[in-house]
Amino acid sequence: MQRVAIAGASGYAGGELARLLLMHPELEIGALTAASSAGSPLGAHQPHLPQLAARIIQETTPEVLAGHDVVFLALPHGQSAAIAAQLDESDTVIVDCGADHRLADPAAWAEFYGGAHAGTWPYGLPELPGQRDILKAARRIAVPGCYPTAVTLALFPAFAEGLAEPDVVVVAATGTSGAGKALKPNLLGSEVMGSVSAYGVGGVHRHTPEMEQNLSAVAGLPVTVAFTPMLAPMSRGILATCTAPGTPGLTAAALRDAYESALKDEPFVTLLPEGVWPATAMTYGANTAALQVTLDERAGRVVAVIAIDNLTKGTAGGAIQSVNLALGLPEGLGLPLNGVAP
Amino acid sequence: MQRVAIAGASGYAGGELARLLLMHPELEIGALTAASSAGSPLGAHQPHLPQLAARIIQETTPEVLAGHDVVFLALPHGQSAAIAAQLDESDTVIVDCGADHRLADPAAWAEFYGGAHAGTWPYGLPELPGQRDILKAARRIAVPGCYPTAVTLALFPAFAEGLAEPDVVVVAATGTSGAGKALKPNLLGSEVMGSVSAYGVGGVHRHTPEMEQNLSAVAGLPVTVAFTPMLAPMSRGILATCTAPGTPGLTAAALRDAYESALKDEPFVTLLPEGVWPATAMTYGANTAALQVTLDERAGRVVAVIAIDNLTKGTAGGAIQSVNLALGLPEGLGLPLNGVAP
Amino acid sequence: MQRVAIAGASGYAGGELARLLLMHPELEIGALTAASSAGSPLGAHQPHLPQLAARIIQETTPEVLAGHDVVFLALPHGQSAAIAAQLDESDTVIVDCGADHRLADPAAWAEFYGGAHAGTWPYGLPELPGQRDILKAARRIAVPGCYPTAVTLALFPAFAEGLAEPDVVVVAATGTSGAGKALKPNLLGSEVMGSVSAYGVGGVHRHTPEMEQNLSAVAGLPVTVAFTPMLAPMSRGILATCTAPGTPGLTAAALRDAYESALKDEPFVTLLPEGVWPATAMTYGANTAALQVTLDERAGRVVAVIAIDNLTKGTAGGAIQSVNLALGLPEGLGLPLNGVAP
Amino acid sequence: MQRVAIAGASGYAGGELARLLLMHPELEIGALTAASSAGSPLGAHQPHLPQLAARIIQETTPEVLAGHDVVFLALPHGQSAAIAAQLDESDTVIVDCGADHRLADPAAWAEFYGGAHAGTWPYGLPELPGQRDILKAARRIAVPGCYPTAVTLALFPAFAEGLAEPDVVVVAATGTSGAGKALKPNLLGSEVMGSVSAYGVGGVHRHTPEMEQNLSAVAGLPVTVAFTPMLAPMSRGILATCTAPGTPGLTAAALRDAYESALKDEPFVTLLPEGVWPATAMTYGANTAALQVTLDERAGRVVAVIAIDNLTKGTAGGAIQSVNLALGLPEGLGLPLNGVAP
Repeated sequence: MQRVAIAGASGYAGGELARLLLMHPELEIGALTAASSAGSPLGAHQPHLPQLAARIIQETTPEVLAGHDVVFLALPHGQSAAIAAQLDESDTVIVDCGADHRLADPAAWAEFYGGAHAGTWPYGLPELPGQRDILKAARRIAVPGCYPTAVTLALFPAFAEGLAEPDVVVVAATGTSGAGKALKPNLLGSEVMGSVSAYGVGGVHRHTPEMEQNLSAVAGLPVTVAFTPMLAPMSRGILATCTAPGTPGLTAAALRDAYESALKDEPFVTLLPEGVWPATAMTYGANTAALQVTLDERAGRVVAVIAIDNLTKGTAGGAIQSVNLALGLPEGLGLPLNGVAP
Repeated sequence: MQRVAIAGASGYAGGELARLLLMHPELEIGALTAASSAGSPLGAHQPHLPQLAARIIQETTPEVLAGHDVVFLALPHGQSAAIAAQLDESDTVIVDCGADHRLADPAAWAEFYGGAHAGTWPYGLPELPGQRDILKAARRIAVPGCYPTAVTLALFPAFAEGLAEPDVVVVAATGTSGAGKALKPNLLGSEVMGSVSAYGVGGVHRHTPEMEQNLSAVAGLPVTVAFTPMLAPMSRGILATCTAPGTPGLTAAALRDAYESALKDEPFVTLLPEGVWPATAMTYGANTAALQVTLDERAGRVVAVIAIDNLTKGTAGGAIQSVNLALGLPEGLGLPLNGVAP
Repeated sequence: MQRVAIAGASGYAGGELARLLLMHPELEIGALTAASSAGSPLGAHQPHLPQLAARIIQETTPEVLAGHDVVFLALPHGQSAAIAAQLDESDTVIVDCGADHRLADPAAWAEFYGGAHAGTWPYGLPELPGQRDILKAARRIAVPGCYPTAVTLALFPAFAEGLAEPDVVVVAATGTSGAGKALKPNLLGSEVMGSVSAYGVGGVHRHTPEMEQNLSAVAGLPVTVAFTPMLAPMSRGILATCTAPGTPGLTAAALRDAYESALKDEPFVTLLPEGVWPATAMTYGANTAALQVTLDERAGRVVAVIAIDNLTKGTAGGAIQSVNLALGLPEGLGLPLNGVAP
Repeated sequence: MQRVAIAGASGYAGGELARLLLMHPELEIGALTAASSAGSPLGAHQPHLPQLAARIIQETTPEVLAGHDVVFLALPHGQSAAIAAQLDESDTVIVDCGADHRLADPAAWAEFYGGAHAGTWPYGLPELPGQRDILKAARRIAVPGCYPTAVTLALFPAFAEGLAEPDVVVVAATGTSGAGKALKPNLLGSEVMGSVSAYGVGGVHRHTPEMEQNLSAVAGLPVTVAFTPMLAPMSRGILATCTAPGTPGLTAAALRDAYESALKDEPFVTLLPEGVWPATAMTYGANTAALQVTLDERAGRVVAVIAIDNLTKGTAGGAIQSVNLALGLPEGLGLPLNGVAP
């Protein structure tokens, strides 16, 4: 058994990490830390985890996080880099579930996040071509954003085979847990229930450059993403519609073939049977993506739709998948393949 | 007072017509008809309308519908044309809330609906340039589809001014009432709650040619729409993200100006203050659209996002707005400007 | 037209007052005031009310509220009394939508709310036997709590006729708007959606003495209420199950008769047809109550179930109903009888 | 590994059995059967279970179900008995997830279900005093109803110690999955979302005699239950408020002590810290109950509130817990202790 710490254990990503780690046969939970909730029992914040209810949350300090084999940092953007810099144990696998180490381009960091760029860590999306080998040697892992996870999985097969033009339009609905436990008026149940709303429209959402970075790397040329996120009345889940012009001569059969080839050995990405379209409920609580693709022949566009659970495959489950690789464990160890429905 | 009949009174569109007509000072409800629920009291089907609870639903026949000033046909697609053909009273305003008389192109009808095309009636979207005058003389009105209402309102100002290229991508979330009261497994509460799903992807949704018809007419050239609808866990509401490449040299200020000019006298379309994005809750139960537009300068795309209530502005309220015009009444008479929230 | 002010216009009760007053033919909206949101446009807080979007919220001061025919105080508990005391205009109808003036017993106030008792105002529940006459002369009105409105309407016919023993058990589910716009973690959409929770269990909820006060007055003897509220995943609505032992010899027919007699002239309380049970959707946005009652013959208990909209009949609509009486207007003027569904 | 069959695999209970069995280290899934969906892949009905997506559903016949160590019958009420009678393999553990074998009293069966009583099997609620030993020898198991599971767990500690009078009032909210996949209008998402409704009021719900049977057995005297169920806008979960008069002299401390003693060794029932009240989200997807109890001193009543997942602890998880006992495995083997939240 290897020992893991979770910084940010009182939040939604931290809670999902704890839920999944309790099912993992080779990882055991050590320190649970947070900021304002330090000193209180975890049960006050994560009442769905009775196995950890009596565990007392500690302060997020280098001292508390020291001595673990793996440290998950599930902290607000901008806070991971500082604490990671103080954890100078080269053998520890440090996993940043925030954005601090995702972007390779300091200018993109400055434009979308502001401040100094903390550097770039190996990107924790094993399905990205070539990425598994990189993660096998990694001691530092940047967990992808939830939207970029969905969008990259939905479109990389098309771009890897040169089947789509680099002018991507993405519209994605997310559940409210994607915004965390922040006490904001627009996240109140009264506002959210019965309503779908748009936010971060017009190229300003921080996940935009990350999507572009991933798809450009696969395509071998610059890919632009016009991204519109929506908040939907559900706690979990992302459903992303990802579309790009098909390259000249593209046929529906060739598109399907490319997706089948790219995904046939992926344990966590299901290409649905033809005619079946994803629903977020298919992936609720599971480390999976449900994907479908078609060619809109009227409009000449590739349309890929993907569902993930933003907290599982989109954050905590994806993080553990990468950690499994880094530790030399089977990639899927301890990760749920099946969702909870209805 | 003029007397109106509602065919399809036990369905969701019929119920919304009844709710709105009960608030209308110049229209009174006559016959309420349906098919399988004929003979039962309306209260068994529309328990939110106690004022009509004891009214008995009659059969949908030409005899029952005769003798009214206005007849609303809120019937499944393909059923309006047959009953309308039997109502040969030229003075009666006949309002088809279904699809039968929306499309001008018989080939588009054949491709998306199949069977013989019933013909084309004046299109009940007063905001479409030039359409108010047409509706003032109308005795037949084709009520737009809910999605085309949203998408046309969102993009016509851009196409009217030549600010967007005719390569439109629309992704829209709808509440379940858009699918009617059909007893289908995917519409069960257990399946819908907590889940967003895609359907009708890839250019096959029947509202696609209607959107293209409207925007092409405004643009003066053929506009293509790649349309992806989603089902969201709410009863009512549409939130549509509508995007198209901006024409060369387009600026954010010019785009905003065009929308302000086009919408400044529209009573039911609100261009939100800059920086505020629509939520369907803003329009719940109201005959309004809440709209915002921006220029995504990274991607060079116009992005318009619009919220409507699919049953109110998207069906029953829009229908009454057109009927007001046809009857020479003030366009907004009896129609709610304010929604019910939270 | 008489002129009304709303103090607390940025909250949920204030917003519902504004929505309903916009439909009222004899009342027009004057000052809109609030505390922390003073200075901002109402549209920033109530985006579903485009007719008032540009109105600027003023400070809640006696000066701003002066000069109106009616002043609605939709303020947190404990704040109404202070401002009301400063509004010493004897002709103005002052309406306290909070709890400050509901209880007749200072000891009950001290036990459940604490601090000094502000006094007792005429209780704004016209359906309570004898209460209409009191309200017709009223210049001060204490609007009932949302739960007491539901429970009193559900059980007064039984207690008025001596058909139930004074040992009441009530379990009621409410939507989140009942808790207001407070930024509390348990009111976040992520916590509320997909979950029903209990709170204020064991006789500690502040609405308990108000229910007991009402039912005791009707019964003519002390009635005890064991009350358990629940938070349900919806924005609006209360469904209350209210049960008490039937008195010896009670029959189902006698019970039904008593309810029919008591309610037959009530415009806003619908006794549903036998076998039909209430749903909150029946009353969404309407000033109505949907009620059913039965005798559980196995257990010997009267079981009455009632649905209301907590913001409409439970707060703002009920307030306007009482104001209509106080102003000598028809009791139902401007108040919606039909709900918005589905 | 022992081999299990699931009859009714396309339904909600069947799907939950499959989900849980996929996580069980000693049970492997054999035949999956159903009625109308026989011949189709399980993925068409349970798309959240990709591990079984390609498995073809077989007909529910004795031949198909033969040869398994355990057979779960997740069939509509009244269908289990017939098929069970044909499975005359005495060594097979046959588990009836329906109602056919729960009631000991044929008269109660006749009154609430009608038709011939199939007989009584060992009752699968291990927490009921004395029941674990009975289940250890069982080859036939009657899985409790979801509501009786909740209510029995909530009140047995009080009745076992003689702390409550036998006059119980229960009001419970359930998610829609409790009603199964039946295509009924009141279960449509449009009807359910945003609304709480009552049903089966007045002593007519079929789970009433089962609750009375359990509590009477514990109390040693006849207990009456006045039960009102409600449908809440969520897919899963039961929150039950269970109340009974406290016996004379009962104190809050004595009540708490009794619950702590009764539950201290129960792995799946959590008595929450004082002051914390249950939410169904605490138990989502877990085989757990979250329970709190208090003494309402004003009303003199014991009030216990409990949350379970109706499909997990309330059906499939509870069934596997009993099967673990019957097979001599650790009682909690393979069963989730932690829920999925938010």
